[in-house]
Amino acid sequence: MPSLDRVPRRETVAPLAVILAAGNGSRLRSDRSAVPKPLVHLRGLSIAERSIAQLLAAGVERFVVVLGCDAALVQHEFERVARRRRCHITCVEAENWERGNGCSAVAAAPLVGDSPFLLAMVDHLLPPEMIRDVLANPPAQDEIALAVDHDTENVFDLPDLTKVEVSGGCIAAIGKDLASWNAGDTGLFYCSSRLFEGLARAHEQGKFSLTDGIRECVAQGGVRAIDVTRARWLDVDTPEASQEAVRRIDAAMGKGGGDGFISQYINRPLSRRLSVALSRTSLTPNHITLLAFFMGLLGAVGLATTDPWFWIAGGILIQIASIVDGCDGEIARIKLLQSPQGAWLDTVLDRYSDLAVGLAVTFAASQLHDAAWVWPAGFAATSSFLMASYVTKEFQIRFKRPYPNNLVNKLKRRDLRILAIAVGAALGHPFVALLAIGSLTHLAVLQVLVSGWDTTPVLRPEVRT
Amino acid sequence: MPSLDRVPRRETVAPLAVILAAGNGSRLRSDRSAVPKPLVHLRGLSIAERSIAQLLAAGVERFVVVLGCDAALVQHEFERVARRRRCHITCVEAENWERGNGCSAVAAAPLVGDSPFLLAMVDHLLPPEMIRDVLANPPAQDEIALAVDHDTENVFDLPDLTKVEVSGGCIAAIGKDLASWNAGDTGLFYCSSRLFEGLARAHEQGKFSLTDGIRECVAQGGVRAIDVTRARWLDVDTPEASQEAVRRIDAAMGKGGGDGFISQYINRPLSRRLSVALSRTSLTPNHITLLAFFMGLLGAVGLATTDPWFWIAGGILIQIASIVDGCDGEIARIKLLQSPQGAWLDTVLDRYSDLAVGLAVTFAASQLHDAAWVWPAGFAATSSFLMASYVTKEFQIRFKRPYPNNLVNKLKRRDLRILAIAVGAALGHPFVALLAIGSLTHLAVLQVLVSGWDTTPVLRPEVRT
Repeated sequence: MPSLDRVPRRETVAPLAVILAAGNGSRLRSDRSAVPKPLVHLRGLSIAERSIAQLLAAGVERFVVVLGCDAALVQHEFERVARRRRCHITCVEAENWERGNGCSAVAAAPLVGDSPFLLAMVDHLLPPEMIRDVLANPPAQDEIALAVDHDTENVFDLPDLTKVEVSGGCIAAIGKDLASWNAGDTGLFYCSSRLFEGLARAHEQGKFSLTDGIRECVAQGGVRAIDVTRARWLDVDTPEASQEAVRRIDAAMGKGGGDGFISQYINRPLSRRLSVALSRTSLTPNHITLLAFFMGLLGAVGLATTDPWFWIAGGILIQIASIVDGCDGEIARIKLLQSPQGAWLDTVLDRYSDLAVGLAVTFAASQLHDAAWVWPAGFAATSSFLMASYVTKEFQIRFKRPYPNNLVNKLKRRDLRILAIAVGAALGHPFVALLAIGSLTHLAVLQVLVSGWDTTPVLRPEVRT
Repeated sequence: MPSLDRVPRRETVAPLAVILAAGNGSRLRSDRSAVPKPLVHLRGLSIAERSIAQLLAAGVERFVVVLGCDAALVQHEFERVARRRRCHITCVEAENWERGNGCSAVAAAPLVGDSPFLLAMVDHLLPPEMIRDVLANPPAQDEIALAVDHDTENVFDLPDLTKVEVSGGCIAAIGKDLASWNAGDTGLFYCSSRLFEGLARAHEQGKFSLTDGIRECVAQGGVRAIDVTRARWLDVDTPEASQEAVRRIDAAMGKGGGDGFISQYINRPLSRRLSVALSRTSLTPNHITLLAFFMGLLGAVGLATTDPWFWIAGGILIQIASIVDGCDGEIARIKLLQSPQGAWLDTVLDRYSDLAVGLAVTFAASQLHDAAWVWPAGFAATSSFLMASYVTKEFQIRFKRPYPNNLVNKLKRRDLRILAIAVGAALGHPFVALLAIGSLTHLAVLQVLVSGWDTTPVLRPEVRT
């Protein structure tokens, strides 16, 4: 075996992020209830939880949250998030947070230590890849880095944007009303403790915003720009921005990739709507995985009878289960709950579900037809479902790349086989459907076997067991 | 899907190796036939082919071979190797090769160009990892690097060893009779064209060995030592060294790793002997894979009958097939023919073979017992075999490390299930054996499923499909 036995671990200190959650969020609040902004839910997740989850997904492990307005309520929410996401969150209340967010930032100073730390706003939607890009560019000693977006045409709320002038990779000027500017301040910083010196100088001049502090740092040189131009960040500051946030969360939900035909045109459009509805509940992706699994088993029970009406019910159930099975990943993406464990449970249970359906349909056929070939044929057809999944995994391990989602792959995918059997059951011929889709799947598997043969024609060393 | 779609390619020029194959090999030849040394076979592979194969396995793609003694015969062999291994070999005949191997090296000068090149001796057994270590340390402009071994106690033929004195990472002295030395010359160099200048200076002084040329380079400074102390290299110069070479090749044959109990104590000891015998034939690892597959299918035919004598024959056949199935990897390692394609064919055909055996045993039982549960039970038992392979692959992909070869893994391995069914067949109860091993395998699969759940308890971002 190759030396994959231990995944390499980061040797540096786990990254820390400071989240400013002290503001009163008046622009968003005016149109809504009296709920503090960090407690506003976007697709089932509070703004507070989303701010933590997106940083966790990028590898940040420790958090300092600065509270101000409605401190007790907001702290309670962050404590809930810390338990639910199993991460370490320290809350600190800012004095004079009403004066400006510079005062909020200062409150974190005693808690950040000497290592560089991320500084983020609670109400910014930041794609984890963008955060990872920033983490990959740590500031030098006494340096401050600001993630900037040069695609100023696509900024959601341009009048409210803090503008920056980037010159030679550094921030030359920053402010909302700059005459000359070429990028937007995304609100994500990678700071050294020098930030607090800048803030202190601004305070002495009676200026209390974070931008004022940064401007002081700019005046002394050494505020670097990190270009994150392609990232889809969003400042959720107004009801309009909140709607845009939901649109973006929904758009990211289908990013799983590699869908088959049925999934693409039938299952996904339905499962997305269902996922939006389910995101309002407290059901986790793993709950949905188990729900879909047991629905599939129940459908198999219907298919195992000899009653055509039960076949119809069973067929409908397995097809609904196949649709619901798409929701686990979608909800995981909506709520930033993706995990290898979830994907593991989902894929392994799908195999058992396939087995149950094939076994049930074959059993029913064996009750109706007293032919010796029924069981071997059903057996062979069902085994194709397991082989179909097996060969793609094996391909990925042997050739170190995923098997492409080409026509052959789509023909052997689960969405197609479940629909084929469901339709067959509805038409009164589940076993014919099983044999047909099983044969097709076996052919597709053979094609994968042959294609593996052609994949890297040059002899290369490889562990062979 | 992650962006694994394209495997990154080396952007630099493919590495070139010069192989010196001009000597008359008198020390090895005296005790043997008149066959030129590069044509002597070690476990089914000529020394010439092995010298190319070990460099190919390390990533070298182009070769210049310097001929001298028996040039026509040796060239013919290398041409055969180039066709068989699909690589580019240029042969060049050295003038005055009898004077010393420095004259042989000079013959390569017009063919190596400006890039650094490896220089190796045809008769040295070099582990591919050692060659890769050297390739990872390319010489600077005008530098020469020599792989040295500080473990001088374990050098096979100490009197014949060329000694070196390494000081501050550079070669300070080189020769067979050094008074003070601390490492051995492994005969593997990573050179710039400065080597030829050193050789030219040595020739002017009437000194014609490679060591003389290197000594001239040392005198001008800049011969670096690459420490390969743990590598098991061998200069195959005498009949005794030739026997040692065969011992080492045999020892490397079982390196596949991750065997089950039956494989370790029964199958491997037998398959190794068989592999040694088969290595004398021209059978490739893929031939062996297909042979084992068809033997397994034939065994399944025996098991599908209702005749206990055929069961015994079928059981013996599937167990022999299981032993032969170990030979493909062994012969691949003996003959340096490992490939991802070979491993791919082997693992996928094993799954079909498992299916055939389970189907056959269940079919036979269904002929003998008119019970409704026979087919579902056999079906479920056989499906455990596919699930067992599937979950380990899925585990490796989801958690980015191989599933450990622990007790649970060994209980669900193919060696055990095949022997269990073979023994059951010999005792007249193949179906009982199938159900027993199938139940055990399903339990092991469930344990793997649960263990995956515990694998990385911290929430981490991951693609979920």
